[in-house]
Amino acid sequence: MNIAASSTENAGPFTHACVWHKLLANKIVEVAEKIKKLGQDDPRRIVHSLKVGLALTLVSLFYYIQPLYDRIGENLIWAVITVVLVFEFSVGATLGKGLNRMLATFSSGALGFGVHYLATLAGEKGEPIVLGFFVAIIGAIVTFVRFFPTMKTRYDYGLLIFILTFTLVSVSSYREDKVLRMAHQRVTTIIMGSFIAIVTCICIRPVWIGVELQNLVANNIEKLGNFLQGFSDEYFKISEDGQPMSDKPFLQGYKSLLTSKNSEETMANLARWELWHYRFGFCHPWKQYVKVGTLTRQCAYKIDALNNYLNSEIQTFNEFGCKIQDPSTKICSESGKALRELASAVKKMNQSTSVNAHIENLKIATENLKSMLDTYHLKDAKLQDVIPPAEVALTLIDVVPCIVKIADAVHELASLAHFKTPATRVSP
Amino acid sequence: MNIAASSTENAGPFTHACVWHKLLANKIVEVAEKIKKLGQDDPRRIVHSLKVGLALTLVSLFYYIQPLYDRIGENLIWAVITVVLVFEFSVGATLGKGLNRMLATFSSGALGFGVHYLATLAGEKGEPIVLGFFVAIIGAIVTFVRFFPTMKTRYDYGLLIFILTFTLVSVSSYREDKVLRMAHQRVTTIIMGSFIAIVTCICIRPVWIGVELQNLVANNIEKLGNFLQGFSDEYFKISEDGQPMSDKPFLQGYKSLLTSKNSEETMANLARWELWHYRFGFCHPWKQYVKVGTLTRQCAYKIDALNNYLNSEIQTFNEFGCKIQDPSTKICSESGKALRELASAVKKMNQSTSVNAHIENLKIATENLKSMLDTYHLKDAKLQDVIPPAEVALTLIDVVPCIVKIADAVHELASLAHFKTPATRVSP
Repeated sequence: MNIAASSTENAGPFTHACVWHKLLANKIVEVAEKIKKLGQDDPRRIVHSLKVGLALTLVSLFYYIQPLYDRIGENLIWAVITVVLVFEFSVGATLGKGLNRMLATFSSGALGFGVHYLATLAGEKGEPIVLGFFVAIIGAIVTFVRFFPTMKTRYDYGLLIFILTFTLVSVSSYREDKVLRMAHQRVTTIIMGSFIAIVTCICIRPVWIGVELQNLVANNIEKLGNFLQGFSDEYFKISEDGQPMSDKPFLQGYKSLLTSKNSEETMANLARWELWHYRFGFCHPWKQYVKVGTLTRQCAYKIDALNNYLNSEIQTFNEFGCKIQDPSTKICSESGKALRELASAVKKMNQSTSVNAHIENLKIATENLKSMLDTYHLKDAKLQDVIPPAEVALTLIDVVPCIVKIADAVHELASLAHFKTPATRVSP
Repeated sequence: MNIAASSTENAGPFTHACVWHKLLANKIVEVAEKIKKLGQDDPRRIVHSLKVGLALTLVSLFYYIQPLYDRIGENLIWAVITVVLVFEFSVGATLGKGLNRMLATFSSGALGFGVHYLATLAGEKGEPIVLGFFVAIIGAIVTFVRFFPTMKTRYDYGLLIFILTFTLVSVSSYREDKVLRMAHQRVTTIIMGSFIAIVTCICIRPVWIGVELQNLVANNIEKLGNFLQGFSDEYFKISEDGQPMSDKPFLQGYKSLLTSKNSEETMANLARWELWHYRFGFCHPWKQYVKVGTLTRQCAYKIDALNNYLNSEIQTFNEFGCKIQDPSTKICSESGKALRELASAVKKMNQSTSVNAHIENLKIATENLKSMLDTYHLKDAKLQDVIPPAEVALTLIDVVPCIVKIADAVHELASLAHFKTPATRVSP
């Protein structure tokens, strides 16, 4: 803005326009770069946008086909509304919303028809009163049901559509004589809309939320492994060259785990709708992924403490520091190997065979460190020098049970989900 | 089921019916208890459900008023749809959705009308092609825009409605001659529906999400304070009577903080829509609450480490343990007082006057503990005995900068939000 202001002071209208033109061009370039970055970060976003455009065009074709329009007419808008509201980024979310919408429309349409029949019994004057009463009661009850946690996680959208359709059918029934025909047309168009949304979502480069969840959980485990494998090098390097390490990406990766609880739970709930994914089949134990995720997060809280020791001021190591270096390094490297092996097992859906060996090594290394600490006798040392390395050692000992728990949970997952046993073991 | 099975073995159909009747009654009682609990946990849920029922009845009245129906007819369904989709638990969410919906309907209706005009230029055969093309392009572009984080947080619903209305207006315009009239009626009914939803939401026992967020942030700070004030008693009591403490609620309260990030951010985004709340006014610094919340959470991670020391095995205290008891207890009690004072300041929107004194005391106590640790010389002590109390002391020292940061953030909030200065200071 400064450039524009200074250069336009003595300028005519043409120069003025030129400068504004340049500013506008800069702004456009800036927005274009943002768009490019957003697309590059996850190219599936662009594909998703194009898929929505395609689905909308497909559903609007219905309007241009004369025989279809003659039969259904204005109610075709419900197909359009359905496509817009049901189409989501992942297959699980789209399926969940589509099935919820179809089921809710069907059941609430039937209930609305029943209430319409009851209301006609009340005579012409009583009809609006009966209808209004039922709309208020059913609306309040279903709204309250939406607060139940079990209903909220899977059927929230269906309950919303239930209220919507029931109210629409009830109030329309007062004006429209052919209620049954109207209800039938709406159900048909909503099924048509859901069908278009689901087919477009599945057939063109689908995003399976189950695969996403599996990768997320595996990557989170891997991030912990990367941290631990890198940690001992970084920590003991400080002592050797006296230089603090830079913020390396593998040491910061675990931070995204600390607050991933909600997204994991949402993904697990959506993944359940992907009933027929070739890789998972029916009844895949999605809850177990949440359990593994929770244990990984608990481990990440402890890792966060370790990270703080890395960031604290440079310490010089004394005899004690050197003594814990070997067992600590062993714990870190075995933990890292075990966790990376577990991550790869989850990702490839293999039974992990070499994890148990690493866990055994890890337990032995932990026992060594523990007995070393238990028997170590301080002879005239300054507390200041002893505490920092001792804290690191104790935190590492604390991390080990977390890792064992993660390994157990992954083994449980492997047996629940019937992970295959690899024919030839690839060494990690 | 076992009771039913065993008692019905030799029974006639009457007894059979009786047993099933009892089982059914039990099931009903169980569900009723669940409902009662859900209502008791938060009675506002019941009020909200009744409000939705009322709003639905109000909007369905439109159908029964003959002059209104004569003018608007079938398009009245949009008012019903709007009430169902816009009515949310909190005022902020309802206002946000209502304003989004109105704005999006208006702008996309105008765009749809423009595209309709363009399409008619293309002749009868070209019209569906032009319309289909624009529906695909605009649908894809707006879907992509929904991925921008800044758009997603505030305008996601509006963008969805934009796609919906644009598609509906475009495809309907092919069939309907009076496009302008239809667009006008839809905008009118949607405004009517939003108005009913917003008025019902605000006038009958409203839930202001801004107040909720303020209380959440204040309660979270208070939970940390409660933990710290309780911690020193519990920790040093272990040493005295050798008994582990039970899981007291004030020691577990902080755990809900660890994963509250998402809900705080969502609430802050919704609170911005509550423009005219009497307590906050325009431009209340909602982002600052998120900042305070983030700092509180970082402090909670460290508190989690302290909690682990409480849960670890019972230790016997030696000379060193006794030596840190006094300064540690001082830090805990001053931290607790400062945090509780801060929480009360946020809740009452007061400038906190006595916090600074507590913070000063806290800093002095920390310096004392630090210099004690720095100068302490271990004479022939077992490492095992020294480490646990030393860890607690170091973690406490680590917690102090977090508390200072929280206090600074709350002071910043107080000045940004023009918290009032209390006339007479009430001692904490």
